[in-house]
Parts: sequence; C-alpha cells; structure tokens
Amino acid sequence: MLPIAVDAMGGDHAPAHIVAGAQLAADEGIPVILVGQPEAIGETSLEVIAASEVIAMDEDPTKSVRTKKDSSLVRAAEAVRDGRASGMVSAGNTGAALTAATLRMKRIKGVGRPAIATPLPMFSGGTPNILIDAGANVDCTPELLALFARMGAVYSRAKYGIETPRVGLLSNGEEASKGSPLTKAAFPLLSESGWQQATGANFIGNVEGRDLLGDDVDVIVTDGFTGNVALKSLEGAAKAIVDALLGAFDSSDEARQGAQLLLPALAPLYERTNPDSVGGAALVGVKGVCMISHGSSSATAILNAVRAAHELAETDLVGQLTAALATD
Amino acid sequence: MLPIAVDAMGGDHAPAHIVAGAQLAADEGIPVILVGQPEAIGETSLEVIAASEVIAMDEDPTKSVRTKKDSSLVRAAEAVRDGRASGMVSAGNTGAALTAATLRMKRIKGVGRPAIATPLPMFSGGTPNILIDAGANVDCTPELLALFARMGAVYSRAKYGIETPRVGLLSNGEEASKGSPLTKAAFPLLSESGWQQATGANFIGNVEGRDLLGDDVDVIVTDGFTGNVALKSLEGAAKAIVDALLGAFDSSDEARQGAQLLLPALAPLYERTNPDSVGGAALVGVKGVCMISHGSSSATAILNAVRAAHELAETDLVGQLTAALATD
Repeated sequence: MLPIAVDAMGGDHAPAHIVAGAQLAADEGIPVILVGQPEAIGETSLEVIAASEVIAMDEDPTKSVRTKKDSSLVRAAEAVRDGRASGMVSAGNTGAALTAATLRMKRIKGVGRPAIATPLPMFSGGTPNILIDAGANVDCTPELLALFARMGAVYSRAKYGIETPRVGLLSNGEEASKGSPLTKAAFPLLSESGWQQATGANFIGNVEGRDLLGDDVDVIVTDGFTGNVALKSLEGAAKAIVDALLGAFDSSDEARQGAQLLLPALAPLYERTNPDSVGGAALVGVKGVCMISHGSSSATAILNAVRAAHELAETDLVGQLTAALATD
Repeated sequence: MLPIAVDAMGGDHAPAHIVAGAQLAADEGIPVILVGQPEAIGETSLEVIAASEVIAMDEDPTKSVRTKKDSSLVRAAEAVRDGRASGMVSAGNTGAALTAATLRMKRIKGVGRPAIATPLPMFSGGTPNILIDAGANVDCTPELLALFARMGAVYSRAKYGIETPRVGLLSNGEEASKGSPLTKAAFPLLSESGWQQATGANFIGNVEGRDLLGDDVDVIVTDGFTGNVALKSLEGAAKAIVDALLGAFDSSDEARQGAQLLLPALAPLYERTNPDSVGGAALVGVKGVCMISHGSSSATAILNAVRAAHELAETDLVGQLTAALATD
C-alpha cells in the first residue's frame, strides 16, 4: 500500500504535533510521508516531500491554492494524484484543502461537487452517524442532495461496514410534506429506487435535528449551510453542557468528592466523544482519499486521521464511489 | 388588566394539567380565563369561555382553523381580538395556534409574516438568547429576515429589559462573506442604521451555531427552516448527553454514590434548563400576545407561560412592536 501524505504544515499545532502524529502512525506500521518545509519539520526518520510554501488558516482558499503552487497542501494533493500516496491528511485551512484536493485529484465522474462527510459524536456509544454535506457546498440543488445521499451511503458502508445504510433527509419535520423548497424538491429524487439499489441504501424520509445523534438513521443528507449550522449547534450545546457540568463538579467540597467517585464512569464517555478519537471528516467525490482534521488537532487526532485514510484507501472508497456513480 | 385566555384543550396532558396550571396562575393573582369544552374541563372556579370543538395535535393547521370555528384555539384567539383577554396561551397544535392567532388577531402593520421567538436553554445561567424565527416561516426573503431582526430586538427588550440587544445573523461563518444566498442578501439590510436606531439594537454581523448558547449575542435571526434544525439539533445533543450521563451515574455503586454527592450542585442546572421553567415561545407580529407552549407542558409550564403572557401584555409588547415598525 502506498503511504498516506500528511500535510505537516497545516493546523494550530503544526508542524510539531502533526509530525508526532505521523510518527505514531508509522510506528504502527502504516506507511506515511510528510509534506512541508524540511527545515521546519526538522530531524525525522520519515520520508519528506519538500514544499516551500504554507497556506495559512485564514487565507482565501481559491486564491491561496492558485498562487501557492509549492504549498504543502497542494503538494500533498499532487502526491495522491501522481500515485506517490494513497491518500492525504490535513489539519490546515479546510477550504484550501477542499480546493486543492478538488483541483489536483479531480472529481469522480458524476460528481457535480465533492462534499464533506462528518462523523457525529455519539454520546450513546453507537457507530457514528454521518452528516453530509457538513459545509463544503453552501448553495445546493436537489440533484446535489441526491448525489450526497448516494456518496454518503457508499461512505457509510466503506467506513463502518453498514450493509444497508439508512439515509435521512434533514428537514423541519418528519412528514413528507415538511421542508424547505430545496428539501421538498430533493425528496422525490431520494425516494427513487435506482440509487438505493445501486448503493444498498434505504431512504427513510425526512429526519429532524434531534435525530442527528440518535440510532434511527446512519446518513443524514443536507446542504452545506444547514449542515454547518446543525453541526455547530450540537457542538455548541455539548460544550455549554460540559462547561456547566465542570462548574458544578467544582462548586463545593462535596461536589468535588462526588466527581472524583464518578470519574471512572465518565472517562469512557469523554473518550468516545473526544474529537481527537474520531480523526476528522472525509472529503468524498474526488479521485483520492482526503481526510480533513480539526485545526486544533493533537498528535492523537493525526494518528487517527492517518488510520482512517489508510483504511479508506485499503477498502478502495474511490473505486466503490466510482462504481456506484457509474450506474446511471 | 384583562385576563389571559388559556386553551384548556391543547396539549398532551389537556385538559387536566392545563387547568391546573391556569389555577396556579390565578392563585398568584394573575387573571385567567379558560377556553374549551365545559364538560371536559369539569368543576372549576375559573371563568370559562365555552368552545365545542378541539383541534388535535396532528391536524392540518390551516384546514382545521378554517373548519373548526368553535374550537378552543380559535375562540381563545377571538377572545384576544374582541378585548375579552389580554393574551392567549396554548400547548396545542403549534401550526394551528399560529394560524388562528394570525387570522383572528391580524398582523401588525408592516409585518409580512409573524414569527416564533424562542428562548434558548442557557446552561451558563445567563439571560436566554432569543432565536427568531424558530419554525413559523420555512421559506423566507431577505426582507423577512430584516423584519425578524427588528421584532426580535423589540421582544428582547420587552421580555428581558435588554436596552441594546445584540442581534446576529445565523450563518456558516463569522466573516461577512460567508452565508447562503438568503443570508448574504439579508446582511446589508441588517447592517442599515435606521432599524437599529428605531429599536435600539446593535447588529453584530454573522454568528454561528456554536454561538446560540453563548454570551456574545442576544437575538439570533434566521429563517424558520434553519431555526427549527438548529433548535432541534441543540435539544437533541442536550438530551443525548443527559441520557449518557444518567447512564454513567447509575453504572456502579461508586458512581451512584458520587452522583448522590453531586445532586445539590446539579439541581440548579437542571432547573435552569428545564423547558417547563421557560414556559414557551412567543408568536410575535400579531395584534395580541400569544404564547405557544410545548405539547408536553406540565401545570408548571402553563403557569410560566401565563406569567410570560401577562408580563408581555403589561409591558405592551404589541404597542412597542407597532411603534418600532411604524418608523419606516
């Protein structure tokens, strides 16, 4: 298997934590190759593809990818395109990663627009539900939502081995009559049997925001604007609750004693929902594996993203998507 | 002050819990009047407006309001219109309450569409942020979002006494360049100084899903589709976390002992975010006070909704809205 190209320069803790994470993956036997400025990366036993430029977290995605042709992000995407790597991982500028992967790897036939498939934090402990699109495409057509449904179903099976992924359309009510003009137009397209047969998916109709973390759906389809709002709303709620809990846990001697006793029971819950354990979102629809990690990624997060990229390359996600999209 | 008309027949626990809640309000000295079937309401010392029909929770809103002219919901809205009540409260069919209030009370001049203003559960303990529109209008124009901003600002001051409400536009990023076609078109309208001067509001630009429960904004403006998804996403996350916590609290003898010690510290957090404490959302933009409570409302929830309706009538929310919207 070809190595996973890791953008050593992207992320809040780059390059130190990124390189450390890549090393952890290499120690497990996963082949990795770093991409970035050799002098910044420093001493390492890992192979390095030299790239002289860095795209900052807040740079304009399209412009930076067009002008910084020797940036680590662009060179990482080219490594996948040129057959030097089987996939890429970046914790850098999300928009730029999306643009670099799309422009350099190119889209799979039938993919109007690639989308971000994000695993949701399952407090219940079950297999993560997939939200697609979680932010790549703000302005969508019904046909794009139908494409996301198809790609999400293939991804759900490739990633989690779900044979018959239950696909839901995110709306403001469960009834088929509910929805925005966009979701109402997408509903009949998702109801068609052809794509469900091609992907093994089962369209279960509209789902609501409260279903995102539930056990009744595997893939939630939405446009990138709504997906971004939904994802950040639930992340914000989780943070607000955890902050309030930590405050309560430290509010008296008695509470501190209670929290101490609860620690062993709470640790698995923390571990399960820690973003570092998940390793990031996948950009699906391009001719290569591309994992996009949080900007704040630790070495552990990068390790998990490299593992995920390696697994998706091994299960041939791109081949599966290509086959599923060629059936029209 | 005229009484608050309480729809005795609306809600999962109607009429028993609704009547009990109305009685609690009356016991506090708030004048209330029940609306519904006298035989179902039974023995009560409260005044009753007889209404022979009931609109069920799952009936089509427009059709049911048009055909059931002697329903408790329609009669409650008429009581406000006819000057028999200063406001109404219903835990029944939300869409029907919206339709009945709009058709019977009529809209305030300048209000293209009334909107639902929902207080968000603040785990931090601060004054609730207001989400508007939380679900009444799925398909919105930029002008409607500008109207919601204006009404939300007036409501925030009337309800919580916030002199300079900070109004944010819900989007997929903070930068002004981020957004859907709808929010990008609304942004310049919200940036205008005229409405901010008329309402005392301060437009702070785009906000994200993670800001909904934070302390940096008072009023979050969005269309009813996105608002519904955002609200249910955060409610769903809160429920998933609480369920997981309760499971952890009961997972061993040690954990149960710890939970027991933590109970006094957790109780205020529970109380603060219990939907029953909030009492429901307000329909703003009609010529009358209309509080819409959860279908699952307990007697305490109804008490709090009647209190809220009474306060909004006393502060003359409708007059304040009328004045703020008459400045164009």
